[in-house]
Amino acid sequence: MELADVGRVGGEWLKGTGPETDVVLSSRIRLARNVAGFPFATRCDDDQRAEILGRLKSAVEGVDLGGRRLFVDVSSAPALESRFLVERHLVSRELVMGKGPRGAAFGSEERLSLMVNEEDHLRLQSLHSGLDLEAAWEEARRVDRQLERIVPFATSTQYGYLTACPTNVGTGLRASVMLHLPALAYTKQMEKVFQSCSRTQLAVRGFYGEGTMAQGDFYQISNQVTLGASEEEILANLSRMLPTILEYEREIRRHLLKEKTRVRLEDKVHRALAVLRAARTVTSEEAMEMLSAVRLGVITGVIGSIGVPAVNELFVLVQPAHVQKLAKTELDSDERDQRRAALLRERLAAT
Amino acid sequence: MELADVGRVGGEWLKGTGPETDVVLSSRIRLARNVAGFPFATRCDDDQRAEILGRLKSAVEGVDLGGRRLFVDVSSAPALESRFLVERHLVSRELVMGKGPRGAAFGSEERLSLMVNEEDHLRLQSLHSGLDLEAAWEEARRVDRQLERIVPFATSTQYGYLTACPTNVGTGLRASVMLHLPALAYTKQMEKVFQSCSRTQLAVRGFYGEGTMAQGDFYQISNQVTLGASEEEILANLSRMLPTILEYEREIRRHLLKEKTRVRLEDKVHRALAVLRAARTVTSEEAMEMLSAVRLGVITGVIGSIGVPAVNELFVLVQPAHVQKLAKTELDSDERDQRRAALLRERLAAT
Repeated sequence: MELADVGRVGGEWLKGTGPETDVVLSSRIRLARNVAGFPFATRCDDDQRAEILGRLKSAVEGVDLGGRRLFVDVSSAPALESRFLVERHLVSRELVMGKGPRGAAFGSEERLSLMVNEEDHLRLQSLHSGLDLEAAWEEARRVDRQLERIVPFATSTQYGYLTACPTNVGTGLRASVMLHLPALAYTKQMEKVFQSCSRTQLAVRGFYGEGTMAQGDFYQISNQVTLGASEEEILANLSRMLPTILEYEREIRRHLLKEKTRVRLEDKVHRALAVLRAARTVTSEEAMEMLSAVRLGVITGVIGSIGVPAVNELFVLVQPAHVQKLAKTELDSDERDQRRAALLRERLAAT
Repeated sequence: MELADVGRVGGEWLKGTGPETDVVLSSRIRLARNVAGFPFATRCDDDQRAEILGRLKSAVEGVDLGGRRLFVDVSSAPALESRFLVERHLVSRELVMGKGPRGAAFGSEERLSLMVNEEDHLRLQSLHSGLDLEAAWEEARRVDRQLERIVPFATSTQYGYLTACPTNVGTGLRASVMLHLPALAYTKQMEKVFQSCSRTQLAVRGFYGEGTMAQGDFYQISNQVTLGASEEEILANLSRMLPTILEYEREIRRHLLKEKTRVRLEDKVHRALAVLRAARTVTSEEAMEMLSAVRLGVITGVIGSIGVPAVNELFVLVQPAHVQKLAKTELDSDERDQRRAALLRERLAAT
């Protein structure tokens, strides 16, 4: 990804388009695959890892990933570059933190991406704006089949696809949606969502997936079961649960807009926008928190002058590596907070 | 005071003029006097109190208080009206909370005011913008002498003026300055000021005088000794201490403007102004706190578009009774917070 692209090319999931975009930021399909005839990545030596990387890299050359095809040799990439890709949700922190030959490929539209030698030999991801798990699944399946014709994957007739961790065996499928739930968060009702998801075998995670905290009131909801159900059944189970959560969030939003509570909502939203437009130093955590309130304000019509895509984009642009890429230099923590504030003032300047 | 005057007529101490106005909001002289031949107010019955009130009221009719002369019968005044006068620093909370015949008089310029039947029969106050204890003292003395020619005051050849509380005996004089010390407060160095004042027999009090908290980083510094020293010596003692405190505050302000800390100051100031311009509900405490940062910003040049008098005025206009007077109706706490926010948005609208 070229420096020049940062902040101009928005990823698919920043578009703010697609169904249910008032609550659903993006839909994501992830497939875990391993190349037949090799040990799992954790048990490979570097020669084997290099061979796997080479085979998958050449296999992907024939595949349309949407836009220009980009490869990143993660083992040699500068730390800032790798963190930048993590912030764009194109690679995982685990891939960056890993060892030995490993890499990533993605299309410049940032809808399709794949990681080589993360936990599994191959992790394939398809990301769509709004709620559109079917489209994400269709696209992931297309790429999966194209690759499989060139690189045979490890399977078992009894279990299906074999994966390094038993929790992914079978379909190797993780379907997830990134939800923006500020109204539930403000009214401290997320606990109910956690309980509902737990009962239906869905997992709730933070902004950067497994093991991360919620930031900006974003929650990722995904299936936990990968075995004993078809891909379609897994998607159906997730899709069945979603309308309830979406309606719950919307109901509270409507309530917050009613006379008695409206002034509190307006106060919160306008203060958040004012702080982002005025501050001289802002941490990424505070920026996410304020942007969440602004996003809610835009969607509920409390703020009329800003669009959803502009706010969505800022959630990514305020991340530390993005701030540094835009500044074209490495920055310490204080410098980052000041640059972030300058970026927010510029992007959110009163129009 | 007429409803129509609120928010247009600013008191003397809101002017933002006079010497050392970057730190000193106002200089105040208060004289405690009692009418000869009557018990102290606490020991008077209502008939005696009424007689004292009558005599002082007629005596003051021949005295120039600056602008139109206004009388308030505090025993019959509506609660909102009385609180309004307290907020303008024209009468004390003690006078309002008292019993029996009692009243107040002041000139519409709000520089000279007097209270009848508070702790003493007469409390005379002269208030000047900036650091000008001499001018305040000259004016108080003029009114004191004019009144004394008509109403003889209780004195003792040994002690001087007799007062209800021994701490006021002698001169009956309290000289005080209202200081704005945001830089000392932000850097948590007020303790040093408290200690210095204590060593030189000066008292440090809050925004509404004795027994009140500091609000908006305003501190009132006054003499504690009234006996055994002439009025001039009391003023000289207070004046001797002030340059040190003023220079201390200014030194920290200069330090805050230096490169390393400047961004923190700018951040604090711009956030405060932004919140006041955007909020939909603001308590008076938060308003005072934010206005303090804005005042520091204006004085240090961080904010260029607002004048000191406009900010000084807001410190008074955001008080609860003022908000209600401007709204022309009594309001509950939530309504006040919303009206206050609307007032601040209107008054601080970006120019």
